[in-house]
Amino acid sequence: MSEKPLRIVIIGGVAGGASAATRARRCDEQAEITLLEKDEYVSFANCGMPYHIGGEIADRGKLLVATANLLRTRFRLEVRERTEAIRIDRVARTVRVRSHVDGTESDLPWDRLILSPGASPIVPRIDGVDAAGVFTLRNIADMDRICAAVATEGQVERRAVVVGAGFIGLEMVEQLVRRGFRVSLVELQTQVLPPMDYEMVLPLAQELKTAGVDVHYGSGLKSILTQDDRAVGVELESGRKLDGQLIVLGMGVRPNTKLAEEAGLLLGRTGGIVTNTVQQTSDPDIYAAGDAVEYVYGPTGESQRVAMAGPANRAGRLAGEHAVLGHSASMAPVMGTAIVRVFGQTAAMTGLTVKAAKRAGLACRSVTVIAGQHAGYYPGAQPLTLKLVYCPETGRVLGAQAVGADGVDKRIDVVATALTFGATVRDLAGLDLAYAPPFGAAKDPVHQAAFTAVNELDGLCEMLDADADLTGWQVVDVRTAAEVSRAPLPGCVGAKAIPIDELRDRIGELDPDQPTVVSCGVGVRGHVALRILRQRGFRRVVNLTGGATLRRRIFPEA
Amino acid sequence: MSEKPLRIVIIGGVAGGASAATRARRCDEQAEITLLEKDEYVSFANCGMPYHIGGEIADRGKLLVATANLLRTRFRLEVRERTEAIRIDRVARTVRVRSHVDGTESDLPWDRLILSPGASPIVPRIDGVDAAGVFTLRNIADMDRICAAVATEGQVERRAVVVGAGFIGLEMVEQLVRRGFRVSLVELQTQVLPPMDYEMVLPLAQELKTAGVDVHYGSGLKSILTQDDRAVGVELESGRKLDGQLIVLGMGVRPNTKLAEEAGLLLGRTGGIVTNTVQQTSDPDIYAAGDAVEYVYGPTGESQRVAMAGPANRAGRLAGEHAVLGHSASMAPVMGTAIVRVFGQTAAMTGLTVKAAKRAGLACRSVTVIAGQHAGYYPGAQPLTLKLVYCPETGRVLGAQAVGADGVDKRIDVVATALTFGATVRDLAGLDLAYAPPFGAAKDPVHQAAFTAVNELDGLCEMLDADADLTGWQVVDVRTAAEVSRAPLPGCVGAKAIPIDELRDRIGELDPDQPTVVSCGVGVRGHVALRILRQRGFRRVVNLTGGATLRRRIFPEA
Repeated sequence: MSEKPLRIVIIGGVAGGASAATRARRCDEQAEITLLEKDEYVSFANCGMPYHIGGEIADRGKLLVATANLLRTRFRLEVRERTEAIRIDRVARTVRVRSHVDGTESDLPWDRLILSPGASPIVPRIDGVDAAGVFTLRNIADMDRICAAVATEGQVERRAVVVGAGFIGLEMVEQLVRRGFRVSLVELQTQVLPPMDYEMVLPLAQELKTAGVDVHYGSGLKSILTQDDRAVGVELESGRKLDGQLIVLGMGVRPNTKLAEEAGLLLGRTGGIVTNTVQQTSDPDIYAAGDAVEYVYGPTGESQRVAMAGPANRAGRLAGEHAVLGHSASMAPVMGTAIVRVFGQTAAMTGLTVKAAKRAGLACRSVTVIAGQHAGYYPGAQPLTLKLVYCPETGRVLGAQAVGADGVDKRIDVVATALTFGATVRDLAGLDLAYAPPFGAAKDPVHQAAFTAVNELDGLCEMLDADADLTGWQVVDVRTAAEVSRAPLPGCVGAKAIPIDELRDRIGELDPDQPTVVSCGVGVRGHVALRILRQRGFRRVVNLTGGATLRRRIFPEA
Repeated sequence: MSEKPLRIVIIGGVAGGASAATRARRCDEQAEITLLEKDEYVSFANCGMPYHIGGEIADRGKLLVATANLLRTRFRLEVRERTEAIRIDRVARTVRVRSHVDGTESDLPWDRLILSPGASPIVPRIDGVDAAGVFTLRNIADMDRICAAVATEGQVERRAVVVGAGFIGLEMVEQLVRRGFRVSLVELQTQVLPPMDYEMVLPLAQELKTAGVDVHYGSGLKSILTQDDRAVGVELESGRKLDGQLIVLGMGVRPNTKLAEEAGLLLGRTGGIVTNTVQQTSDPDIYAAGDAVEYVYGPTGESQRVAMAGPANRAGRLAGEHAVLGHSASMAPVMGTAIVRVFGQTAAMTGLTVKAAKRAGLACRSVTVIAGQHAGYYPGAQPLTLKLVYCPETGRVLGAQAVGADGVDKRIDVVATALTFGATVRDLAGLDLAYAPPFGAAKDPVHQAAFTAVNELDGLCEMLDADADLTGWQVVDVRTAAEVSRAPLPGCVGAKAIPIDELRDRIGELDPDQPTVVSCGVGVRGHVALRILRQRGFRRVVNLTGGATLRRRIFPEA
């Protein structure tokens, strides 16, 4: 350790900054560590804010996890709230700071600088956007403002509009419904949760419908409607108007890279600060972590922004360690793992979706299974839909998505873990997962999905996309007559209904030379049917992914 | 495919046999597949039986997952129930079968034979063991007998004795309590769930106590006490007698290897049938799967028996495929992943415990964290205790155990997945797991445990076992005064109480030359204290694993 204490300045407490500061202190008791935060609260549980607004987390204080006082007394950090870093001088190795308390400015010297500037909500420049009643949710002050608006009594009918059906938008919808609002949800894309594949989020859309949420897909926001400078609704680009005294914008975030950019630090392909695997920027004495930086994204190996709390924490921790010790572990590639609960359903993802793989120009194939989150014979089994995306040449797993009432987080974490090690679908098929009736099944949904993928790789089956055009195919529905009449296979005319157990005896009713689609409830009996027909000389047989269950989500009109 | 259909005979439906049969059919529509089962039910959900006895699974029919009828109609299997294979002739390639319906015997020819004989409950040869009211639980007939006994009305006080506190024993205890029995539990070892490390199962023991279960550790069973040939209790080797009209023996199982052994097939080190990675026995035309075989055990690479449903299913599936196609994937090493719910607590494990590692002569170290199963600020957070066992040289993960009210299965599945790929604790520290407040934390318990292990590997900390003798150590309890008085650190005289936030200012009260143990609530503040003291020149500082919380589980008398 050098004679003179190392001077560490950290810009921004949230999204990795506090992790960096406390880790630096643990590794270096002598260092002079200053934590600058332009807002009032230096560290808080931002992921919990929607739940406080909705009243699930009643005590606001619970969100203030690492208070300035704790950081001062336990970690002997110099914490300066309401102090903004406005300029970095890389030659003099100082940072110009401005106090929002008294307006004074001063220069702070540093030996190592750690940037954790986070990201800011995107606010469109449209009419009315500055009116009272229009909110974004990024920090405690935002949350307090929304809470105050929510608490306002005396409104005959409480109406809110949430713009953006991403993770935060969906959490806000749920919590505002909880608080008695009639909520309209506006989304520019044609689905909720645009990062996920279309058919995987349909149970969430259904859940919103059941909760009475009025959802508008494919709708751009034209303006905020106001009366006496207060929001009274929104106008969509379609011309449609929606009432609402409370407007929450959840339209994504923009990384706060201005300071880094002005200091001449490199920005990357996706607009984030470039960092190496120990979180050094293009200036090795300046580190960065959190929502403003780019990480190595595991499934493609490319750098990109991933604005999630987990990576921010880990990257901040590494940056703090490396800044004082000069060595640390490497930041592991991130997988973009994310999860959201929407009323009774949960959706989660890790790695690439089919649409992301296509966008990245990667060959991919997918399998989707619908199975209980635990043994079907144990009470409370509920359908979990799991989609596995993999490379058709190597079988390497590229990503997974899941949706269901329970057990979604577990399956996504299993696949996220497997992704870390470059697992193939064959590896997933062999996982030794915990099984007792309340927790899983001897063949877990992860196994089932992997078995199907391996069957495809080995040429033992071929899956057809759930939304495929069935025109020109000989369609064989192998469910029982009762199932078929209760829930017909949609988007299909003239399907032959032959229950699986009669298929061998009635095979003469089918034309072996015609390309054939078999379909059942979720795909399990379909596979048996496919195997029978293929071995009886049928030219081409494919099994409809997810059977009638998945297809009926996609084409509910039938 | 050969002109003549392949003749496959499968011995035993449960524990892999039915999986083998249905997979063989999917891969070969022409094969003649015969499934022999000596009992009445060819395939059933044996893991669900305790839950039917307890009434959680009300409908008995739900356990009969793959009925003989289904196997016949859907898979065109020749199913012969109540038919026992009594001799294998490897030269003639026949199996001698005896019908328990009419007592006739005949020879069945085979081209490929698949053994799935399972295992049988261990029944000690003691007085009274054949009396009415003494049960084991292995098949549907056993279950039906117990159900009938449980349903018997008119007993003034319903008392049961369960012998063996393993997985099945614990499930039976819970379910019998559910049915109104006063239950005594007898275990030869000095803890419940002997496969797990002692301190990890203490929350289960507490749960049993709370439920009023009378547990007798370190107690061998001497005899069953009877009256008029009916059980009325048990006598322990200590001479102690326990009342009970219902006695359930859950003393483990013995693999049914007699048939294989008599046929000259190789048995392994742990008494199971030796198989290669495609489940062939020492005779390549004879396959085996399920509770009677040995698998490659991942953490050691050695062969051993692992009597679990998951591996049995997967091995059966592979055997069925390989038997008809001549090729298949390889059976992945098993990790011994297992889970059990005991009232409000769940315990699970994967890979090696500390005691198993020691038994295997492997160097190991462990870390234990106690943390919420999800973000502490979100309602419903409950302590989850996670223990990670790893190699002190390489950091390779050897195993994990967890216990808690919720989220146990997820963490164990994550580590089980990581084990498959030879993960190190450094890998675990970088996992990108799903986080939203209801599901986890930005720093998941898996991360926290891994961080600690990495700190140890890197020399940044040293953990002391939770049950260590603290004599001769300078003990510093860094909790607040209120915490210390509410829950003193047991097994320790003269601990110095210095709250973490005062440690730097009061450091003069401590002797830097004396070996020092720091302790807090669960270990988090202890780590901060360790880092402070070490950097202030203390000669040796160690952090008590799990702090006062874990130590108070081990020494509850304090």
